[in-house]
Amino acid sequence: MSIGGKRIRPILVLMGNELFDELHPEALAVAQAIELFHNFTLIHDDIMDKAPLRRGKATVHKVYGDSTALLAGDVVLVQAYEQLAKVRHANLQSLLLLFNKTAREVCEGQQMDMDFEQKDVVETEEYTQMIALKTSVLLAGSLQMGAIIGGAGLGNQQHLYEFGKNLGIAFQVQDDYLDVFGDPLKFGKQPGGDIIANKKTFLQIHAMAHATGNDKETLNYWMKQQPEHPAEKITAVTEIFRRTGADAWASSLKEQYYRMALEHLETIAVVSARKCELRNLAEFLMMREH
Amino acid sequence: MSIGGKRIRPILVLMGNELFDELHPEALAVAQAIELFHNFTLIHDDIMDKAPLRRGKATVHKVYGDSTALLAGDVVLVQAYEQLAKVRHANLQSLLLLFNKTAREVCEGQQMDMDFEQKDVVETEEYTQMIALKTSVLLAGSLQMGAIIGGAGLGNQQHLYEFGKNLGIAFQVQDDYLDVFGDPLKFGKQPGGDIIANKKTFLQIHAMAHATGNDKETLNYWMKQQPEHPAEKITAVTEIFRRTGADAWASSLKEQYYRMALEHLETIAVVSARKCELRNLAEFLMMREH
Repeated sequence: MSIGGKRIRPILVLMGNELFDELHPEALAVAQAIELFHNFTLIHDDIMDKAPLRRGKATVHKVYGDSTALLAGDVVLVQAYEQLAKVRHANLQSLLLLFNKTAREVCEGQQMDMDFEQKDVVETEEYTQMIALKTSVLLAGSLQMGAIIGGAGLGNQQHLYEFGKNLGIAFQVQDDYLDVFGDPLKFGKQPGGDIIANKKTFLQIHAMAHATGNDKETLNYWMKQQPEHPAEKITAVTEIFRRTGADAWASSLKEQYYRMALEHLETIAVVSARKCELRNLAEFLMMREH
Repeated sequence: MSIGGKRIRPILVLMGNELFDELHPEALAVAQAIELFHNFTLIHDDIMDKAPLRRGKATVHKVYGDSTALLAGDVVLVQAYEQLAKVRHANLQSLLLLFNKTAREVCEGQQMDMDFEQKDVVETEEYTQMIALKTSVLLAGSLQMGAIIGGAGLGNQQHLYEFGKNLGIAFQVQDDYLDVFGDPLKFGKQPGGDIIANKKTFLQIHAMAHATGNDKETLNYWMKQQPEHPAEKITAVTEIFRRTGADAWASSLKEQYYRMALEHLETIAVVSARKCELRNLAEFLMMREH
Protein backbone atom coordinates (compact mmCIF):
# COMPACT_ATOMS: atom_id res chain seq x y z
CA MET A 1 0.00 0.00 0.00
CA SER A 2 2.78 2.40 0.88
CA ILE A 3 4.20 2.63 -2.63
CA GLY A 4 1.21 4.58 -3.80
CA GLY A 5 -0.97 4.50 -6.81
CA LYS A 6 -3.41 7.23 -7.69
CA ARG A 7 -5.85 6.44 -4.86
CA ILE A 8 -8.67 7.35 -7.21
CA ARG A 9 -11.17 4.91 -5.63
CA PRO A 10 -10.89 6.11 -2.02
CA ILE A 11 -11.12 9.68 -3.29
CA LEU A 12 -14.36 8.76 -5.06
CA VAL A 13 -15.77 7.46 -1.75
CA LEU A 14 -15.04 10.81 -0.12
CA MET A 15 -16.45 12.75 -3.08
CA GLY A 16 -19.58 10.60 -3.06
CA ASN A 17 -20.06 11.45 0.61
CA GLU A 18 -19.39 15.15 0.13
CA LEU A 19 -21.81 15.44 -2.75
CA PHE A 20 -24.62 15.05 -0.22
CA ASP A 21 -23.29 15.98 3.20
CA GLU A 22 -20.33 17.02 5.31
CA LEU A 23 -17.55 14.46 5.27
CA HIS A 24 -18.44 11.71 7.71
CA PRO A 25 -15.45 10.05 9.48
CA GLU A 26 -16.82 6.66 8.49
CA ALA A 27 -16.22 7.49 4.84
CA LEU A 28 -12.53 7.14 5.67
CA ALA A 29 -12.98 3.54 6.82
CA VAL A 30 -14.94 2.75 3.66
CA ALA A 31 -12.32 4.51 1.54
CA GLN A 32 -9.65 2.32 3.10
CA ALA A 33 -11.79 -0.78 2.57
CA ILE A 34 -12.09 0.10 -1.13
CA GLU A 35 -8.37 0.75 -1.58
CA LEU A 36 -7.53 -2.51 0.23
CA PHE A 37 -9.98 -4.35 -2.01
CA HIS A 38 -8.36 -2.79 -5.08
CA ASN A 39 -4.94 -3.92 -3.84
CA PHE A 40 -6.28 -7.43 -3.23
CA THR A 41 -7.35 -7.59 -6.88
CA LEU A 42 -3.94 -6.36 -8.03
CA ILE A 43 -2.07 -8.98 -5.99
CA HIS A 44 -4.22 -11.83 -7.32
CA ASP A 45 -4.36 -10.47 -10.90
CA ASP A 46 -0.57 -10.22 -10.96
CA ILE A 47 -0.33 -13.90 -9.98
CA MET A 48 -2.74 -14.87 -12.77
CA ASP A 49 -1.02 -12.63 -15.33
CA LYS A 50 2.46 -13.67 -14.14
CA ALA A 51 3.24 -9.94 -14.06
CA PRO A 52 6.77 -9.13 -12.87
CA LEU A 53 6.19 -5.44 -12.07
CA ARG A 54 3.49 -3.26 -10.50
CA ARG A 55 3.91 0.46 -9.93
CA GLY A 56 7.55 0.04 -10.89
CA LYS A 57 8.29 -2.50 -8.16
CA ALA A 58 8.55 -6.28 -8.19
CA THR A 59 5.12 -7.88 -7.66
CA VAL A 60 4.28 -9.74 -4.44
CA HIS A 61 4.41 -13.16 -6.09
CA LYS A 62 7.79 -12.35 -7.66
CA VAL A 63 9.25 -11.54 -4.24
CA TYR A 64 7.50 -14.10 -2.01
CA GLY A 65 6.28 -16.81 -4.37
CA ASP A 66 2.79 -17.63 -5.63
CA SER A 67 1.47 -19.32 -2.48
CA THR A 68 2.37 -16.51 -0.13
CA ALA A 69 1.05 -13.94 -2.61
CA LEU A 70 -2.21 -15.85 -2.88
CA LEU A 71 -2.56 -15.87 0.91
CA ALA A 72 -1.44 -12.25 1.20
CA GLY A 73 -4.17 -11.32 -1.25
CA ASP A 74 -6.72 -13.28 0.79
CA VAL A 75 -5.66 -11.45 3.95
CA VAL A 76 -5.85 -8.06 2.22
CA LEU A 77 -9.42 -8.88 1.17
CA VAL A 78 -10.23 -9.79 4.78
CA GLN A 79 -8.58 -6.53 5.88
CA ALA A 80 -10.90 -4.68 3.53
CA TYR A 81 -13.83 -6.22 5.37
CA GLU A 82 -12.16 -5.34 8.67
CA GLN A 83 -12.23 -1.68 7.67
CA LEU A 84 -15.83 -2.00 6.57
CA ALA A 85 -16.78 -3.58 9.90
CA LYS A 86 -15.57 -0.44 11.67
CA VAL A 87 -18.55 1.46 10.33
CA ARG A 88 -20.86 2.04 13.30
CA HIS A 89 -23.67 3.07 11.15
CA ALA A 90 -27.26 2.17 10.48
CA ASN A 91 -26.07 1.70 6.90
CA LEU A 92 -23.50 -1.00 7.61
CA GLN A 93 -25.74 -3.55 5.96
CA SER A 94 -26.35 -1.54 2.76
CA LEU A 95 -22.62 -0.83 2.52
CA LEU A 96 -21.80 -4.49 2.99
CA LEU A 97 -24.34 -5.60 0.38
CA LEU A 98 -23.00 -3.13 -2.19
CA PHE A 99 -19.40 -3.98 -1.37
CA ASN A 100 -20.10 -7.71 -1.79
CA LYS A 101 -21.96 -7.23 -5.06
CA THR A 102 -19.11 -5.09 -6.40
CA ALA A 103 -16.45 -7.52 -5.21
CA ARG A 104 -18.16 -10.43 -6.90
CA GLU A 105 -18.59 -8.50 -10.15
CA VAL A 106 -14.92 -7.51 -10.23
CA CYS A 107 -13.96 -11.19 -9.91
CA GLU A 108 -16.42 -12.08 -12.67
CA GLY A 109 -14.88 -9.39 -14.88
CA GLN A 110 -11.42 -10.83 -14.32
CA GLN A 111 -12.69 -14.28 -15.27
CA MET A 112 -14.27 -12.88 -18.45
CA ASP A 113 -10.99 -11.17 -19.29
CA MET A 114 -9.12 -14.47 -18.95
CA ASP A 115 -11.75 -16.25 -21.03
CA PHE A 116 -11.35 -13.67 -23.79
CA GLU A 117 -7.64 -14.49 -24.07
CA GLN A 118 -8.66 -17.91 -25.35
CA LYS A 119 -11.09 -16.53 -27.93
CA ASP A 120 -10.25 -15.30 -31.41
CA VAL A 121 -13.26 -13.04 -31.71
CA VAL A 122 -14.89 -11.01 -28.96
CA GLU A 123 -17.99 -8.87 -29.48
CA THR A 124 -18.05 -5.20 -28.50
CA GLU A 125 -20.98 -5.83 -26.14
CA GLU A 126 -19.24 -8.56 -24.16
CA TYR A 127 -15.96 -6.64 -24.09
CA THR A 128 -17.81 -3.60 -22.74
CA GLN A 129 -19.52 -5.82 -20.19
CA MET A 130 -16.13 -7.21 -19.11
CA ILE A 131 -14.64 -3.70 -18.77
CA ALA A 132 -17.68 -2.58 -16.81
CA LEU A 133 -17.29 -5.46 -14.37
CA LYS A 134 -13.53 -5.52 -14.12
CA THR A 135 -12.94 -1.82 -13.67
CA SER A 136 -16.03 0.41 -13.78
CA VAL A 137 -18.24 -1.11 -11.09
CA LEU A 138 -15.57 -0.49 -8.46
CA LEU A 139 -15.42 3.21 -9.38
CA ALA A 140 -19.23 3.31 -9.41
CA GLY A 141 -19.48 1.37 -6.15
CA SER A 142 -16.95 3.68 -4.47
CA LEU A 143 -19.08 6.70 -5.34
CA GLN A 144 -22.29 5.00 -4.23
CA MET A 145 -20.82 3.86 -0.92
CA GLY A 146 -19.83 7.46 -0.28
CA ALA A 147 -23.34 8.55 -1.21
CA ILE A 148 -24.84 6.04 1.23
CA ILE A 149 -22.74 7.51 4.03
CA GLY A 150 -23.76 10.97 2.88
CA GLY A 151 -27.39 9.96 3.38
CA ALA A 152 -28.40 10.07 -0.30
CA GLY A 153 -31.71 8.57 -1.36
CA LEU A 154 -31.74 5.48 -3.56
CA GLY A 155 -32.49 7.40 -6.78
CA ASN A 156 -29.57 9.75 -6.28
CA GLN A 157 -27.34 6.82 -5.32
CA GLN A 158 -28.20 5.07 -8.56
CA HIS A 159 -27.52 8.10 -10.74
CA LEU A 160 -24.15 8.56 -9.05
CA TYR A 161 -23.42 4.88 -9.60
CA GLU A 162 -24.26 5.19 -13.30
CA PHE A 163 -22.12 8.32 -13.54
CA GLY A 164 -19.15 6.31 -12.22
CA LYS A 165 -19.86 3.28 -14.35
CA ASN A 166 -20.18 5.22 -17.62
CA LEU A 167 -17.19 7.38 -16.80
CA GLY A 168 -15.17 4.22 -16.14
CA ILE A 169 -16.09 2.76 -19.52
CA ALA A 170 -15.30 6.06 -21.26
CA PHE A 171 -11.95 6.10 -19.51
CA GLN A 172 -11.16 2.57 -20.67
CA VAL A 173 -12.10 3.40 -24.29
CA GLN A 174 -9.73 6.35 -24.05
CA ASP A 175 -7.05 4.17 -22.47
CA ASP A 176 -7.27 1.69 -25.35
CA TYR A 177 -7.19 4.59 -27.84
CA LEU A 178 -4.19 6.31 -26.24
CA ASP A 179 -2.22 3.09 -26.11
CA VAL A 180 -2.16 3.18 -29.92
CA PHE A 181 -2.67 6.80 -30.89
CA GLY A 182 -1.41 8.67 -27.82
CA ASP A 183 1.46 11.12 -28.08
CA PRO A 184 4.38 9.25 -26.50
CA LEU A 185 5.81 12.54 -25.19
CA LYS A 186 2.63 13.40 -23.34
CA PHE A 187 1.46 9.85 -22.62
CA GLY A 188 4.78 8.86 -21.08
CA LYS A 189 5.15 5.50 -22.78
CA GLN A 190 5.79 4.06 -26.20
CA PRO A 191 2.60 3.36 -28.13
CA GLY A 192 1.50 -0.12 -29.11
CA GLY A 193 1.85 -2.04 -25.83
CA ASP A 194 -1.57 -3.64 -26.28
CA ILE A 195 -0.77 -4.53 -29.90
CA ILE A 196 2.49 -6.18 -28.84
CA ALA A 197 0.63 -8.21 -26.20
CA ASN A 198 -2.16 -9.21 -28.66
CA LYS A 199 -4.66 -7.76 -26.20
CA LYS A 200 -8.32 -7.44 -26.95
CA THR A 201 -9.17 -3.73 -26.87
CA PHE A 202 -12.01 -1.57 -28.17
CA LEU A 203 -9.87 -0.81 -31.23
CA GLN A 204 -8.87 -4.40 -31.87
CA ILE A 205 -12.44 -5.65 -31.53
CA HIS A 206 -13.79 -2.99 -33.90
CA ALA A 207 -11.05 -3.70 -36.43
CA MET A 208 -11.61 -7.47 -36.27
CA ALA A 209 -15.31 -6.90 -36.95
CA HIS A 210 -14.81 -4.40 -39.80
CA ALA A 211 -11.59 -5.36 -41.58
CA THR A 212 -12.10 -7.04 -44.94
CA GLY A 213 -10.04 -9.03 -47.43
CA ASN A 214 -6.33 -8.51 -47.04
CA ASP A 215 -6.62 -6.42 -43.89
CA LYS A 216 -8.56 -9.14 -42.12
CA GLU A 217 -5.91 -11.72 -42.97
CA THR A 218 -3.07 -9.42 -41.97
CA LEU A 219 -4.76 -8.60 -38.68
CA ASN A 220 -5.40 -12.27 -37.94
CA TYR A 221 -1.80 -13.04 -38.77
CA TRP A 222 -0.33 -10.39 -36.48
CA MET A 223 -2.69 -11.19 -33.60
CA LYS A 224 -0.95 -14.57 -33.37
CA GLN A 225 2.65 -13.31 -33.58
CA GLN A 226 4.98 -12.26 -30.79
CA PRO A 227 7.90 -10.82 -32.82
CA GLU A 228 11.04 -9.86 -30.94
CA HIS A 229 11.16 -6.51 -32.79
CA PRO A 230 7.54 -5.43 -32.92
CA ALA A 231 7.88 -2.16 -34.89
CA GLU A 232 6.59 -3.69 -38.13
CA LYS A 233 3.67 -5.33 -36.32
CA ILE A 234 2.68 -2.08 -34.56
CA THR A 235 2.77 -0.13 -37.81
CA ALA A 236 0.77 -2.73 -39.73
CA VAL A 237 -1.91 -3.15 -37.07
CA THR A 238 -2.20 0.60 -36.45
CA GLU A 239 -2.71 1.12 -40.19
CA ILE A 240 -5.55 -1.41 -40.19
CA PHE A 241 -7.09 0.26 -37.14
CA ARG A 242 -7.13 3.51 -39.13
CA ARG A 243 -8.49 1.93 -42.30
CA THR A 244 -11.38 0.31 -40.41
CA GLY A 245 -12.12 3.64 -38.75
CA ALA A 246 -11.48 2.19 -35.30
CA ASP A 247 -9.88 5.45 -34.15
CA ALA A 248 -12.82 7.66 -35.03
CA TRP A 249 -15.27 5.05 -33.75
CA ALA A 250 -13.45 4.83 -30.40
CA SER A 251 -13.41 8.62 -30.05
CA SER A 252 -17.12 8.80 -30.60
CA LEU A 253 -17.78 5.83 -28.30
CA LYS A 254 -15.83 7.53 -25.55
CA GLU A 255 -17.82 10.74 -26.05
CA GLN A 256 -21.04 8.74 -25.86
CA TYR A 257 -20.18 7.17 -22.48
CA TYR A 258 -18.80 10.46 -21.20
CA ARG A 259 -22.04 12.22 -22.14
CA MET A 260 -24.13 9.51 -20.46
CA ALA A 261 -22.00 9.88 -17.34
CA LEU A 262 -22.58 13.64 -17.27
CA GLU A 263 -26.31 13.22 -17.82
CA HIS A 264 -26.55 10.99 -14.76
CA LEU A 265 -24.53 13.51 -12.78
CA GLU A 266 -26.85 16.32 -13.85
CA THR A 267 -29.92 14.30 -12.84
CA ILE A 268 -28.78 14.00 -9.23
CA ALA A 269 -30.99 16.17 -7.07
CA VAL A 270 -28.47 18.37 -5.29
CA VAL A 271 -27.61 21.98 -6.09
CA SER A 272 -25.44 22.18 -9.17
CA ALA A 273 -22.54 23.85 -7.34
CA ARG A 274 -21.98 20.74 -5.24
CA LYS A 275 -21.33 18.76 -8.42
CA CYS A 276 -18.41 20.95 -9.53
CA GLU A 277 -15.69 18.70 -8.20
CA LEU A 278 -17.10 15.57 -9.82
CA ARG A 279 -17.58 17.45 -13.09
CA ASN A 280 -13.97 18.65 -12.88
CA LEU A 281 -12.74 15.17 -12.11
CA ALA A 282 -14.62 13.73 -15.09
CA GLU A 283 -13.26 16.47 -17.34
CA PHE A 284 -9.74 15.93 -16.04
CA LEU A 285 -9.93 12.19 -16.69
CA MET A 286 -11.22 12.77 -20.22
CA MET A 287 -8.50 15.28 -21.12
CA ARG A 288 -5.60 12.91 -20.90
CA GLU A 289 -3.00 13.93 -23.43
CA HIS A 290 -4.35 13.46 -26.87
CA MET B 1 -20.44 -27.55 -2.00
CA SER B 2 -22.82 -30.24 -3.21
CA ILE B 3 -20.38 -33.12 -2.82
CA GLY B 4 -20.60 -32.88 0.91
CA GLY B 5 -18.12 -33.02 3.70
CA LYS B 6 -19.07 -33.40 7.34
CA ARG B 7 -20.59 -29.89 7.69
CA ILE B 8 -19.23 -29.80 11.22
CA ARG B 9 -18.73 -26.01 11.26
CA PRO B 10 -22.25 -24.98 10.25
CA ILE B 11 -23.58 -27.49 12.77
CA LEU B 12 -21.47 -25.79 15.44
CA VAL B 13 -23.08 -22.44 14.57
CA LEU B 14 -26.52 -23.95 15.12
CA MET B 15 -25.44 -25.66 18.34
CA GLY B 16 -23.91 -22.42 19.61
CA ASN B 17 -27.22 -20.69 18.99
CA GLU B 18 -29.29 -23.45 20.59
CA LEU B 19 -27.15 -23.53 23.71
CA PHE B 20 -28.68 -20.18 24.66
CA ASP B 21 -31.96 -19.79 22.80
CA GLU B 22 -34.38 -21.21 20.27
CA LEU B 23 -32.85 -21.57 16.83
CA HIS B 24 -32.91 -18.20 15.12
CA PRO B 25 -33.34 -18.28 11.32
CA GLU B 26 -30.32 -16.01 10.98
CA ALA B 27 -28.12 -18.75 12.35
CA LEU B 28 -28.71 -20.52 9.03
CA ALA B 29 -27.23 -17.62 7.06
CA VAL B 30 -24.20 -17.53 9.37
CA ALA B 31 -23.86 -21.31 9.13
CA GLN B 32 -23.78 -21.00 5.34
CA ALA B 33 -21.25 -18.18 5.57
CA ILE B 34 -18.99 -20.38 7.69
CA GLU B 35 -19.28 -23.38 5.37
CA LEU B 36 -18.59 -21.16 2.34
CA PHE B 37 -15.56 -19.71 4.10
CA HIS B 38 -14.33 -23.22 4.86
CA ASN B 39 -14.72 -24.16 1.20
CA PHE B 40 -12.84 -21.02 0.16
CA THR B 41 -9.89 -22.14 2.30
CA LEU B 42 -10.01 -25.63 0.79
CA ILE B 43 -9.95 -24.32 -2.79
CA HIS B 44 -6.98 -22.02 -2.11
CA ASP B 45 -5.13 -24.54 0.09
CA ASP B 46 -5.46 -27.16 -2.63
CA ILE B 47 -3.83 -24.75 -5.11
CA MET B 48 -0.96 -24.10 -2.70
CA ASP B 49 -0.53 -27.79 -1.84
CA LYS B 50 -0.97 -28.85 -5.50
CA ALA B 51 -3.47 -31.41 -4.18
CA PRO B 52 -5.10 -33.52 -6.92
CA LEU B 53 -8.07 -34.79 -4.87
CA ARG B 54 -10.50 -33.44 -2.29
CA ARG B 55 -13.37 -35.49 -0.89
CA GLY B 56 -12.57 -38.11 -3.50
CA LYS B 57 -13.05 -35.74 -6.45
CA ALA B 58 -10.59 -33.82 -8.60
CA THR B 59 -9.79 -30.44 -7.03
CA VAL B 60 -10.99 -27.19 -8.60
CA HIS B 61 -7.51 -26.22 -9.85
CA LYS B 62 -7.04 -29.68 -11.39
CA VAL B 63 -10.25 -29.30 -13.40
CA TYR B 64 -10.19 -25.57 -14.26
CA GLY B 65 -6.56 -24.50 -13.83
CA ASP B 66 -4.90 -22.43 -11.11
CA SER B 67 -6.13 -19.00 -12.22
CA THR B 68 -9.78 -19.94 -12.35
CA ALA B 69 -9.48 -21.81 -9.04
CA LEU B 70 -7.87 -18.77 -7.46
CA LEU B 71 -10.72 -16.56 -8.67
CA ALA B 72 -13.35 -19.15 -7.75
CA GLY B 73 -11.94 -19.18 -4.22
CA ASP B 74 -12.09 -15.39 -4.11
CA VAL B 75 -15.72 -15.45 -5.19
CA VAL B 76 -16.61 -18.12 -2.62
CA LEU B 77 -15.08 -15.89 0.08
CA VAL B 78 -17.19 -12.99 -1.17
CA GLN B 79 -20.23 -15.31 -1.16
CA ALA B 80 -19.52 -16.07 2.49
CA TYR B 81 -19.76 -12.35 3.20
CA GLU B 82 -22.94 -12.21 1.11
CA GLN B 83 -24.53 -14.74 3.45
CA LEU B 84 -23.30 -12.80 6.45
CA ALA B 85 -24.76 -9.59 5.05
CA LYS B 86 -28.20 -11.20 5.08
CA VAL B 87 -28.27 -11.02 8.86
CA ARG B 88 -30.77 -8.32 9.77
CA HIS B 89 -29.66 -8.18 13.28
CA ALA B 90 -28.37 -5.71 15.82
CA ASN B 91 -25.40 -8.07 16.06
CA LEU B 92 -24.34 -7.88 12.41
CA GLN B 93 -21.31 -5.84 13.44
CA SER B 94 -20.15 -8.24 16.18
CA LEU B 95 -20.62 -11.16 13.80
CA LEU B 96 -18.64 -9.40 11.09
CA LEU B 97 -15.82 -8.51 13.47
CA LEU B 98 -15.52 -12.08 14.73
CA PHE B 99 -15.80 -13.51 11.22
CA ASN B 100 -13.02 -11.18 9.98
CA LYS B 101 -10.73 -11.97 12.92
CA THR B 102 -11.25 -15.68 12.38
CA ALA B 103 -10.72 -15.43 8.63
CA ARG B 104 -7.48 -13.57 9.08
CA GLU B 105 -6.22 -16.06 11.66
CA VAL B 106 -7.01 -19.03 9.42
CA CYS B 107 -4.91 -17.43 6.65
CA GLU B 108 -2.10 -16.78 9.13
CA GLY B 109 -2.24 -20.41 10.22
CA GLN B 110 -1.93 -21.57 6.62
CA GLN B 111 1.10 -19.30 6.14
CA MET B 112 2.72 -20.71 9.32
CA ASP B 113 2.07 -24.23 8.04
CA MET B 114 3.84 -23.40 4.76
CA ASP B 115 6.72 -21.78 6.65
CA PHE B 116 7.14 -24.93 8.76
CA GLU B 117 7.67 -27.01 5.62
CA GLN B 118 10.91 -25.09 5.12
CA LYS B 119 12.12 -25.61 8.68
CA ASP B 120 13.96 -28.65 10.04
CA VAL B 121 12.87 -28.13 13.63
CA VAL B 122 9.54 -26.78 14.85
CA GLU B 123 8.73 -26.24 18.53
CA THR B 124 5.60 -27.76 20.08
CA GLU B 125 4.36 -24.30 21.09
CA GLU B 126 4.53 -22.87 17.57
CA TYR B 127 3.07 -26.01 16.04
CA THR B 128 0.17 -25.82 18.51
CA GLN B 129 -0.25 -22.15 17.66
CA MET B 130 -0.35 -23.02 13.94
CA ILE B 131 -2.95 -25.75 14.50
CA ALA B 132 -5.02 -23.41 16.64
CA LEU B 133 -5.02 -20.78 13.90
CA LYS B 134 -5.39 -23.06 10.90
CA THR B 135 -8.15 -25.28 12.22
CA SER B 136 -9.35 -24.57 15.77
CA VAL B 137 -10.30 -20.90 15.61
CA LEU B 138 -12.84 -21.61 12.88
CA LEU B 139 -14.54 -24.26 15.05
CA ALA B 140 -14.38 -21.87 18.01
CA GLY B 141 -15.59 -18.92 15.94
CA SER B 142 -18.49 -20.97 14.55
CA LEU B 143 -19.68 -21.74 18.07
CA GLN B 144 -19.26 -18.15 19.21
CA MET B 145 -21.12 -16.75 16.22
CA GLY B 146 -23.99 -19.07 17.08
CA ALA B 147 -23.79 -17.88 20.69
CA ILE B 148 -23.95 -14.24 19.57
CA ILE B 149 -27.14 -14.97 17.66
CA GLY B 150 -28.45 -16.85 20.69
CA GLY B 151 -28.00 -13.69 22.73
CA ALA B 152 -25.21 -15.00 24.97
CA GLY B 153 -23.25 -12.57 27.12
CA LEU B 154 -19.58 -11.97 26.39
CA GLY B 155 -18.32 -14.24 29.22
CA ASN B 156 -20.37 -17.17 28.01
CA GLN B 157 -19.32 -16.47 24.42
CA GLN B 158 -15.68 -16.62 25.42
CA HIS B 159 -16.03 -19.90 27.32
CA LEU B 160 -17.78 -21.44 24.35
CA TYR B 161 -15.03 -20.13 22.08
CA GLU B 162 -12.36 -21.69 24.32
CA PHE B 163 -14.32 -24.94 24.40
CA GLY B 164 -14.18 -25.06 20.61
CA LYS B 165 -10.56 -24.02 20.39
CA ASN B 166 -9.30 -26.58 22.91
CA LEU B 167 -11.47 -29.31 21.44
CA GLY B 168 -10.05 -28.49 18.00
CA ILE B 169 -6.48 -28.83 19.25
CA ALA B 170 -7.32 -32.09 21.06
CA PHE B 171 -8.85 -33.36 17.83
CA GLN B 172 -5.72 -32.52 15.85
CA VAL B 173 -3.46 -34.23 18.41
CA GLN B 174 -5.67 -37.30 18.05
CA ASP B 175 -5.58 -36.99 14.25
CA ASP B 176 -1.77 -36.94 14.25
CA TYR B 177 -1.76 -39.91 16.66
CA LEU B 178 -4.23 -42.00 14.66
CA ASP B 179 -2.35 -41.40 11.43
CA VAL B 180 0.49 -43.47 12.92
CA PHE B 181 -1.08 -45.67 15.57
CA GLY B 182 -4.67 -45.93 14.41
CA ASP B 183 -6.21 -49.30 13.59
CA PRO B 184 -6.35 -49.32 9.78
CA LEU B 185 -9.54 -51.42 9.89
CA LYS B 186 -11.35 -48.88 12.04
CA PHE B 187 -9.57 -45.76 10.80
CA GLY B 188 -10.25 -46.58 7.17
CA LYS B 189 -6.82 -45.82 5.80
CA GLN B 190 -3.31 -47.20 5.91
CA PRO B 191 -1.22 -45.72 8.72
CA GLY B 192 1.83 -43.57 8.13
CA GLY B 193 0.54 -41.04 5.58
CA ASP B 194 2.07 -38.14 7.53
CA ILE B 195 5.38 -40.02 7.86
CA ILE B 196 5.48 -40.67 4.10
CA ALA B 197 4.86 -36.96 3.44
CA ASN B 198 7.51 -35.87 6.00
CA LYS B 199 4.83 -33.80 7.69
CA LYS B 200 5.38 -32.00 10.93
CA THR B 201 2.96 -33.49 13.47
CA PHE B 202 2.71 -33.53 17.27
CA LEU B 203 4.46 -36.92 17.22
CA GLN B 204 7.21 -35.88 14.85
CA ILE B 205 7.94 -32.71 16.79
CA HIS B 206 8.09 -34.55 20.11
CA ALA B 207 10.34 -37.23 18.65
CA MET B 208 12.67 -34.66 17.06
CA ALA B 209 13.03 -32.96 20.42
CA HIS B 210 13.56 -36.14 22.45
CA ALA B 211 15.37 -38.60 20.19
CA THR B 212 19.06 -39.06 21.00
CA GLY B 213 22.12 -40.58 19.37
CA ASN B 214 21.33 -43.07 16.65
CA ASP B 215 17.57 -42.42 16.76
CA LYS B 216 18.08 -38.71 16.13
CA GLU B 217 20.26 -39.42 13.10
CA THR B 218 17.87 -42.03 11.74
CA LEU B 219 14.91 -39.70 12.18
CA ASN B 220 16.73 -36.83 10.47
CA TYR B 221 17.67 -39.17 7.65
CA TRP B 222 14.16 -40.43 7.02
CA MET B 223 12.60 -36.96 7.28
CA LYS B 224 14.50 -36.05 4.10
CA GLN B 225 13.66 -39.19 2.10
CA GLN B 226 10.75 -39.86 -0.20
CA PRO B 227 11.23 -43.60 -0.90
CA GLU B 228 9.02 -45.20 -3.50
CA HIS B 229 8.25 -48.11 -1.16
CA PRO B 230 7.84 -46.45 2.23
CA ALA B 231 7.23 -49.52 4.45
CA GLU B 232 10.76 -49.48 5.87
CA LYS B 233 10.57 -45.76 6.55
CA ILE B 234 7.21 -46.04 8.31
CA THR B 235 8.42 -48.89 10.51
CA ALA B 236 11.66 -47.12 11.43
CA VAL B 237 10.03 -43.77 12.22
CA THR B 238 7.16 -45.37 14.15
CA GLU B 239 9.70 -47.25 16.28
CA ILE B 240 11.46 -43.99 17.11
CA PHE B 241 8.13 -42.36 17.95
CA ARG B 242 7.56 -45.20 20.45
CA ARG B 243 11.08 -45.08 21.90
CA THR B 244 10.82 -41.32 22.54
CA GLY B 245 7.43 -41.84 24.18
CA ALA B 246 5.71 -39.65 21.59
CA ASP B 247 2.65 -41.93 21.61
CA ALA B 248 2.03 -41.73 25.36
CA TRP B 249 2.85 -38.01 25.36
CA ALA B 250 0.36 -37.33 22.56
CA SER B 251 -2.36 -39.30 24.35
CA SER B 252 -1.87 -37.28 27.50
CA LEU B 253 -1.67 -33.99 25.55
CA LYS B 254 -4.97 -34.79 23.90
CA GLU B 255 -6.57 -35.56 27.27
CA GLN B 256 -5.24 -32.26 28.59
CA TYR B 257 -6.85 -30.19 25.81
CA TYR B 258 -10.01 -32.27 25.98
CA ARG B 259 -10.27 -31.64 29.73
CA MET B 260 -9.71 -27.91 29.25
CA ALA B 261 -12.42 -27.87 26.61
CA LEU B 262 -14.88 -29.57 28.97
CA GLU B 263 -14.00 -27.20 31.82
CA HIS B 264 -14.86 -24.22 29.64
CA LEU B 265 -18.11 -25.91 28.65
CA GLU B 266 -19.01 -26.54 32.30
CA THR B 267 -18.30 -22.91 33.20
CA ILE B 268 -20.91 -21.60 30.77
CA ALA B 269 -23.85 -20.26 32.74
CA VAL B 270 -26.75 -22.18 31.27
CA VAL B 271 -28.51 -25.18 32.79
CA SER B 272 -26.41 -28.30 32.44
CA ALA B 273 -29.04 -30.16 30.41
CA ARG B 274 -28.65 -27.69 27.55
CA LYS B 275 -25.00 -28.64 27.25
CA CYS B 276 -25.71 -32.32 26.60
CA GLU B 277 -25.41 -32.15 22.85
CA LEU B 278 -22.10 -30.32 22.92
CA ARG B 279 -20.78 -32.76 25.53
CA ASN B 280 -21.90 -35.66 23.33
CA LEU B 281 -20.30 -34.10 20.28
CA ALA B 282 -17.00 -33.64 22.12
CA GLU B 283 -17.12 -37.21 23.38
CA PHE B 284 -17.96 -38.52 19.91
CA LEU B 285 -15.04 -36.62 18.37
CA MET B 286 -12.65 -37.95 21.03
CA MET B 287 -13.71 -41.56 20.61
CA ARG B 288 -12.51 -42.03 17.09
CA GLU B 289 -11.33 -45.60 16.64
CA HIS B 290 -8.31 -46.20 18.78
